[in-house]
Amino acid sequence: MEKIRIGIVGLGNLGNACRDQVEKRDEFELVGVFSRRAVKGTIPLDNIEKYKMDVLLICVGSKEDAPVLVPKLARHFNTVDSYDTHAKLTEYIKNIKPSGISIVATGWDPGLMSVIRMYFEASITEGPTQSFWGPGVSLGHSNAIKQIDGVTDAIQFTVPMQKMMELASKGIQVEKKHQRICYVVAEKNDRTRIKDTIINMPDYFKGQDVKVNFVSQTIFNKRFRNRNEHEGAVISADKSSTALFGLTLKSNARFTASVMLAYAIANYNLQKEGKRGVFTVADIAPKYLHLKSVLDMV
Amino acid sequence: MEKIRIGIVGLGNLGNACRDQVEKRDEFELVGVFSRRAVKGTIPLDNIEKYKMDVLLICVGSKEDAPVLVPKLARHFNTVDSYDTHAKLTEYIKNIKPSGISIVATGWDPGLMSVIRMYFEASITEGPTQSFWGPGVSLGHSNAIKQIDGVTDAIQFTVPMQKMMELASKGIQVEKKHQRICYVVAEKNDRTRIKDTIINMPDYFKGQDVKVNFVSQTIFNKRFRNRNEHEGAVISADKSSTALFGLTLKSNARFTASVMLAYAIANYNLQKEGKRGVFTVADIAPKYLHLKSVLDMV
Repeated sequence: MEKIRIGIVGLGNLGNACRDQVEKRDEFELVGVFSRRAVKGTIPLDNIEKYKMDVLLICVGSKEDAPVLVPKLARHFNTVDSYDTHAKLTEYIKNIKPSGISIVATGWDPGLMSVIRMYFEASITEGPTQSFWGPGVSLGHSNAIKQIDGVTDAIQFTVPMQKMMELASKGIQVEKKHQRICYVVAEKNDRTRIKDTIINMPDYFKGQDVKVNFVSQTIFNKRFRNRNEHEGAVISADKSSTALFGLTLKSNARFTASVMLAYAIANYNLQKEGKRGVFTVADIAPKYLHLKSVLDMV
Repeated sequence: MEKIRIGIVGLGNLGNACRDQVEKRDEFELVGVFSRRAVKGTIPLDNIEKYKMDVLLICVGSKEDAPVLVPKLARHFNTVDSYDTHAKLTEYIKNIKPSGISIVATGWDPGLMSVIRMYFEASITEGPTQSFWGPGVSLGHSNAIKQIDGVTDAIQFTVPMQKMMELASKGIQVEKKHQRICYVVAEKNDRTRIKDTIINMPDYFKGQDVKVNFVSQTIFNKRFRNRNEHEGAVISADKSSTALFGLTLKSNARFTASVMLAYAIANYNLQKEGKRGVFTVADIAPKYLHLKSVLDMV
């Protein structure tokens, strides 16, 4: 069997999860993990153009890194990323001028939950389609907090309100569906500024129900180190039909990696058809996620 | 707003449900309902070529009618059907040589549940993806029984085994997931032959857990007339992730019509791109199901 040659950029939680699966699955071959930092087992990112890869998985933060790195790497490689800032997606896409195929904003949300929303909204037209997240850890929001000056460590739990999910499954539109609960390690004298920065961070926290708790590094390590579980739901209902989608993930990073690899296969299939450009999950037919015919799944 | 001109072929449960929604929704305009029989409010099918329509919804039985009618109508019209015989889909597709676009096997299963299977199998690669149907009425199976000589009326309930659904959500592959329970109205002296015909009907019943009950027309009318509810689920799980999709439908026909109309929009969008050919739901990217941009749903 022909193998899809994969490169990974970044070796955080997500990069690690991608590497594990690429090494385990027969349809992939790992060419290398590339990093801007001198991390053991990685190749310096500056040397990446010397390597031949079918698809590059971009596993860096959405807030600062992806908007700079992806347009640069897309000039030479076919990419798949998990960019997760819904509000800036249009601008993000506009800045990518790929030489091949760049699939953006994959993962589970945006990603799998996005396509579910598109199918549900198309099929249940007389009632609202609503998304819920958690209880679980948001990697994107945790990373956004970690990038604030003076923050040593941080984690953000998203918690949906059960009552609101019940109303949604009866076709009722709800507001204020979640709480965002943050645990942050920082020096005592810095805390007021950090809390203000979090609460007012546009796209991530501003205008939402946010609780910020400061904890010691010891407590953080004990309670929150390596926590990576998450849940997600899309609920759509009108008077005669209810559609429900639910995800329960022990490892957010592992599932995100899994969906990225599904779109790496799509990228590979689209390359074979001579396609070019930036694609979101909305632009990709389900058959492209598979190497074999899917007629048996119809 | 430009309206999509819709024609409907057949005025059974499904044709009626399509007509209701086409008349209600702003994006559609009903050109006419066509029938081979002299049904009130329908136009004789023989005259259909005199009419101009963007998409024709084919609402006839899968067992005898669609394989004959769809190839014929697809020579002149863009079609959407809900052909539901999984086992004969390849042959069915091969016989359609469309002048425009024929989207086949839409509805909720095949259809919405098919695409869910494709997304789940692509994202959860280390555990099985399994489908369950019911408790509810299978229109396709009910119609298949009704076409047996000597059957006056029939309904088929599909009932999933709860225990098997629980195992599926733990990532365990299960066998024998359903019972098929049939209620049939027929003359007393004909019953043995009819029961045998049902139990041995290939693709529909053969090899499955089937119970056939004969009832009087009076009891049938009282308990089963106009019953049209159904449920469906796709469950996929491995050691670290569980994905669940569930549908609860008060009216099977109404939701099938809803999904057919989503693919009527896809047909219209694909026409605008100059596409041609036979498409299954696997071939159609989610964005095509909408008239507006779906970037806000990503």
